[in-house]
Amino acid sequence: MEKIDLAIIGSGPAGIAAAIYALRRGLSTRIFESEAVGGQAAKAVFVENYPGFAKLTGQELAQKMQEHLASFGLEIEEGNGVAKIKKTGKEFELELENRQKFAAKTVLLATGTENRKLGLPGEKEFYGKGVSYCANCDGPFFRGKKIAVIGGGNSGVTNALYLSEMASKAFLVEFMPELNCDEIYLPLLAKQKNLEILKNTQLLEVIGKEKVEAIRAKDRKTNSEKKILLDGIFIYAGLSPRNGLAKQLGARIDEKGFVKVNANMMGSIEGFFAAGDITGGLAQAVWAAAEGAKAALEAYNYIKGMQK
Amino acid sequence: MEKIDLAIIGSGPAGIAAAIYALRRGLSTRIFESEAVGGQAAKAVFVENYPGFAKLTGQELAQKMQEHLASFGLEIEEGNGVAKIKKTGKEFELELENRQKFAAKTVLLATGTENRKLGLPGEKEFYGKGVSYCANCDGPFFRGKKIAVIGGGNSGVTNALYLSEMASKAFLVEFMPELNCDEIYLPLLAKQKNLEILKNTQLLEVIGKEKVEAIRAKDRKTNSEKKILLDGIFIYAGLSPRNGLAKQLGARIDEKGFVKVNANMMGSIEGFFAAGDITGGLAQAVWAAAEGAKAALEAYNYIKGMQK
Repeated sequence: MEKIDLAIIGSGPAGIAAAIYALRRGLSTRIFESEAVGGQAAKAVFVENYPGFAKLTGQELAQKMQEHLASFGLEIEEGNGVAKIKKTGKEFELELENRQKFAAKTVLLATGTENRKLGLPGEKEFYGKGVSYCANCDGPFFRGKKIAVIGGGNSGVTNALYLSEMASKAFLVEFMPELNCDEIYLPLLAKQKNLEILKNTQLLEVIGKEKVEAIRAKDRKTNSEKKILLDGIFIYAGLSPRNGLAKQLGARIDEKGFVKVNANMMGSIEGFFAAGDITGGLAQAVWAAAEGAKAALEAYNYIKGMQK
Repeated sequence: MEKIDLAIIGSGPAGIAAAIYALRRGLSTRIFESEAVGGQAAKAVFVENYPGFAKLTGQELAQKMQEHLASFGLEIEEGNGVAKIKKTGKEFELELENRQKFAAKTVLLATGTENRKLGLPGEKEFYGKGVSYCANCDGPFFRGKKIAVIGGGNSGVTNALYLSEMASKAFLVEFMPELNCDEIYLPLLAKQKNLEILKNTQLLEVIGKEKVEAIRAKDRKTNSEKKILLDGIFIYAGLSPRNGLAKQLGARIDEKGFVKVNANMMGSIEGFFAAGDITGGLAQAVWAAAEGAKAALEAYNYIKGMQK
């Protein structure tokens, strides 16, 4: 069993920033990633608000962070996440999906979030058959087709702008009476002639046989329902914390499922830290990176304290 | 008097990140800068820990952030800072050094820190005559000469590495028994043959006639004093918050002079926010940028609340 100082779980901006800071402090550090490098940020069609990069794709930002990390000699193995975690004495034992085991003095959970499932009829049934949570991944399959984006925050709006460029017709469905996106996007939405915005509208059902054929939605003001024929729907209706490993450890989470941390980014278990979207912060790459940096420095302080 | 939503004071990573976020939210925003763009980060010889940029100079990072901001149409006028600030009713009145006046619904103080003065005999007298707080600015004047760097944290160490490349002889003077820098730097220090590290050593005096000629220092273990002949000293012994405008406003500061903020980055005065090193955070560019982003979003929420 390989012994390390810091096991970082998740390779989004929080995890990578933490690794950069930890390696600079001389901690033996590993990053474990169950999916692909970059976290939610990597799935963004484009990122315009990570200070220093005027505009780049989420993939490009993930790539730059990964290269930065590689300059300190650490590579990330994708698709081999942590399956099991427990604390034994002062150390943590981790078992990866490939059964490899590690003992770590500290753990940083940076598993972030995934797009929230709405739990609607048809949503699960047609996942991958017209229902998607990643326009950047699946958008190109809907060229020339009709789609709807659910959610009028920044994620929904930017993905609606992206998808309406390739779809024949796009709907943006927002539950509240107004969109909740940066105002900079409003004129861009207005320019998009094939994009129809349905405010104050609640999605009720995803309908289809083999694949998505329509959605049923309700106008919340008039209570009238309508069926919209389309080929795909992309759901950006909030974020769910990926807290499975925190639960395995018995670390405290709040009522929404985010991991509770103190001012030092430490959770309710000694030596267990969390950073980035999993803590319920700002859901912004720069915020996640900052939390990761702080958590790594605090893990360093904690390990130095253990040695005294 | 020009009326704006958000007046940002200071153009380091916190101020620039805040402006990017505020402009995206549609706030009318200005940045005021009394010196040069980029804050403390811009003075760094090199930056290796701003996630996404493996290695660049502080100036390059400042340049990239400034270009990012310019992509949203905001330019920063250097050397025209805020001279006076007061709150009248619900709004803030600001007067610039050139007497121009602004009324702002919200203010974000992002003036950061400056290197702490030690208050030693000769320190003030020989400032600019061999005493410096910025190796990146003044280092090249000491090519082939003897210098000392005071302070063995990351700032002192990176600047000692930089200066020892051009100086004939360099001393790194640390008050504590050990350096407090990232461990990654220890082998680099060891390689630098003309660099001598004096740990557990207290600087007592800067000595000279027209300009610096020597320092007097005490070995804290043996209590013996020695005089070291040299041409320049560079002081990196902690940071002092630039809190003059917070004091003018009567905003609460802590015992070290940092501005107190709540979880929304708001200070003790309604509509007055602070972000970055002035809040006494991590003194890291990515942390400052994250605080700036959050403060801007909170200023937006505050302004929306004013309109209700």
